[in-house]
Amino acid sequence: MIIVNFKTYLEATGKRAVELAKEAEKASKETGINIVVAPQFADLARVAEAVEIPVYAQHIDAVFPGAYTGHILAEAVKEAGASGTLINHSERQLKLADIDATIRHAEEKDLTSCVCTSNPPISAAVAYLHPDIISIEPPELIGTGVAVSKAQPEAVTDTIKMVRKVNTEAVILCGAGISHGEDVAVALKLGTQGVLVASAIVKAKDPYTILREFADSSRT
Amino acid sequence: MIIVNFKTYLEATGKRAVELAKEAEKASKETGINIVVAPQFADLARVAEAVEIPVYAQHIDAVFPGAYTGHILAEAVKEAGASGTLINHSERQLKLADIDATIRHAEEKDLTSCVCTSNPPISAAVAYLHPDIISIEPPELIGTGVAVSKAQPEAVTDTIKMVRKVNTEAVILCGAGISHGEDVAVALKLGTQGVLVASAIVKAKDPYTILREFADSSRT
Amino acid sequence: MIIVNFKTYLEATGKRAVELAKEAEKASKETGINIVVAPQFADLARVAEAVEIPVYAQHIDAVFPGAYTGHILAEAVKEAGASGTLINHSERQLKLADIDATIRHAEEKDLTSCVCTSNPPISAAVAYLHPDIISIEPPELIGTGVAVSKAQPEAVTDTIKMVRKVNTEAVILCGAGISHGEDVAVALKLGTQGVLVASAIVKAKDPYTILREFADSSRT
Amino acid sequence: MIIVNFKTYLEATGKRAVELAKEAEKASKETGINIVVAPQFADLARVAEAVEIPVYAQHIDAVFPGAYTGHILAEAVKEAGASGTLINHSERQLKLADIDATIRHAEEKDLTSCVCTSNPPISAAVAYLHPDIISIEPPELIGTGVAVSKAQPEAVTDTIKMVRKVNTEAVILCGAGISHGEDVAVALKLGTQGVLVASAIVKAKDPYTILREFADSSRT
Repeated sequence: MIIVNFKTYLEATGKRAVELAKEAEKASKETGINIVVAPQFADLARVAEAVEIPVYAQHIDAVFPGAYTGHILAEAVKEAGASGTLINHSERQLKLADIDATIRHAEEKDLTSCVCTSNPPISAAVAYLHPDIISIEPPELIGTGVAVSKAQPEAVTDTIKMVRKVNTEAVILCGAGISHGEDVAVALKLGTQGVLVASAIVKAKDPYTILREFADSSRT
Repeated sequence: MIIVNFKTYLEATGKRAVELAKEAEKASKETGINIVVAPQFADLARVAEAVEIPVYAQHIDAVFPGAYTGHILAEAVKEAGASGTLINHSERQLKLADIDATIRHAEEKDLTSCVCTSNPPISAAVAYLHPDIISIEPPELIGTGVAVSKAQPEAVTDTIKMVRKVNTEAVILCGAGISHGEDVAVALKLGTQGVLVASAIVKAKDPYTILREFADSSRT
Repeated sequence: MIIVNFKTYLEATGKRAVELAKEAEKASKETGINIVVAPQFADLARVAEAVEIPVYAQHIDAVFPGAYTGHILAEAVKEAGASGTLINHSERQLKLADIDATIRHAEEKDLTSCVCTSNPPISAAVAYLHPDIISIEPPELIGTGVAVSKAQPEAVTDTIKMVRKVNTEAVILCGAGISHGEDVAVALKLGTQGVLVASAIVKAKDPYTILREFADSSRT
Repeated sequence: MIIVNFKTYLEATGKRAVELAKEAEKASKETGINIVVAPQFADLARVAEAVEIPVYAQHIDAVFPGAYTGHILAEAVKEAGASGTLINHSERQLKLADIDATIRHAEEKDLTSCVCTSNPPISAAVAYLHPDIISIEPPELIGTGVAVSKAQPEAVTDTIKMVRKVNTEAVILCGAGISHGEDVAVALKLGTQGVLVASAIVKAKDPYTILREFADSSRT
């Protein structure tokens, strides 16, 4: 599984979000690897209309329908075509009680929940809240091009061990610094089920080629 | 001018956001009154495609394009079809420096900025930051059905006086509790150029009728 | 163990914080029950000088010494005489990563960490981060006079079960609505090691009598 | 006027806060210049007992007495001996409505309010809220050793002009990068009434000498 986080990069905003999602869809169909795209909220509907691969929101707020101007409602991203959501990304961290609440909201709205975590104990803590996916991303490696799977393999394996003690079902991903197909292959060998990536794809001159490389590395 | 804030009401989410925007467009065309709709981020693109009246975002974050997962980029709401944005709504308040920064971002992206404020001195403070629109909304009246224009007429007239000392150009609206055509008429008589409304329209059994009543009262 | 949270009640500010702490000390010495007081930051030093019972801060920030104007440094509360700190109280909630960071800071500065949690899964999640004390407080009962130990005994017993799976050492307290000695007795019977209380003591006409009642109930 | 912000520097925590405050008092008495110290909350009481110069809090929260665990109450810092407070420092920024509320709280409790701002329009906006002191600090210069009075003299003079249009009474200070007596002298020549400083004093090998230099430059 590969999740591509579009962040607020201009290279993945508006029309370019749709184009990038189509390249992800192409790589997914050719390889059979599950590739998910996570565009900005304002682009969710257009991206979801344009592609058949899963589309995730980048965040939802722990609010219910009502008087919450400027907030992100699970119901709204669902109706816009999202089938899941990132939660607690290091650039959009939540209070613990809100992580719990948003996982519950996602569950009720049939949205796949992918909670981002930063170290093994925090990942294990989150495992107890039973999200669908846990993605470990040491914040200090994000955007560096130094892959967590290579720089901190023990962070990944420790996380898997600690998470599995209390949760045998969550999909475990790793992120931060994933730049080459080899990084993806190492991540899988360490026991994860995939990767969460952003700049390596979004900022690439030819995102399709990199995505294809990542997807191919996921098959081996 | 009437701005309809959809908040995160289910009655104004997804398809229902598009329907409500169409009723606003109908009332606007029939009366010649400028009616603006402010749907949720995930609904911006579909609403903007469906109607010709102005569409505003409910909030933008003080961030630039880049690594800001889960944030609201001015560029993204613009490309989704928004022509303006609410800023600092009482349900989504900002730090002072971020109010200034988002007004500047909006300006650069040619988005109309509508800053919400809660009392006369705060409104005058905001006037110095030169947003396009200032909307005064005493938080204690929001959602009550008690109109600010009737309950606190002096809050409205004091605001106008203080704002005009330093800013002769900003459009001044008032909000909170506006429920009847008469509330709109009083607001205009007090010297505002219009109203910011939410539940009175969104929660109405027949939003078009109320909108039409508000628009008609705006013409007298 | 009884922790008395002074919150920002005027009845427990300044001189009155010192007086209340002395009554807590008296009740503690007479009964042999460990009573801890948690005054406001500005009162920590005077309270810690006046009594020999443990004094906790109400919160620490996840910051290091440096350029963090207006923040609460673990080193500062320690030097003021605190021997522990509340973390993540429902009125001062933290991001998950900051809960982890503040527990680590407390550990390094030899401060006892007491993390407040709101439901069994969240308590179990926190248990993985190994604070010294976990205090479960369903936010909907805080300040109601309806004791968590009576209204939601299963919340307490479920928490204990889930916490003990991953953490056999943390002291487990319960809070919210504790008003009578009997509530304390029930809390202990359910398997906790004590209670976290606030208004029942701080707002009492005669705090000593209530504290003494709570302490006596802790001995049975 | 010179305000020394102790931030959360270890060099100005606990006993060392008291020592530094005494050196400030010495420089103040010798020169007749008003020197204010702003230690951490936990150190307020001990510092205020040890010196006769004014002691400010670094922040207060926009809360009233009551159930606000871990917050900073105006009443508590007042009773601990503070005679004023910083508000909205760039490292502890507030929502606009909370800046207004804390200025009001400070006024009611007879605490001098010193609001920090970052650019001329924001300073003028704050001027409308009538704090006692406005201190302009361009965030990009804080801690750099490049003095705002030299690097951005027009920021200072523009601020003074804009502030004076609406507020003739507020004391105007400037901060950020003030390192030498000459920086202070320039700040005064530009029309300010003093400076807000931190690392140049707190991190100095001999804080007294620098403080004395600053105070002497304030007299010319």
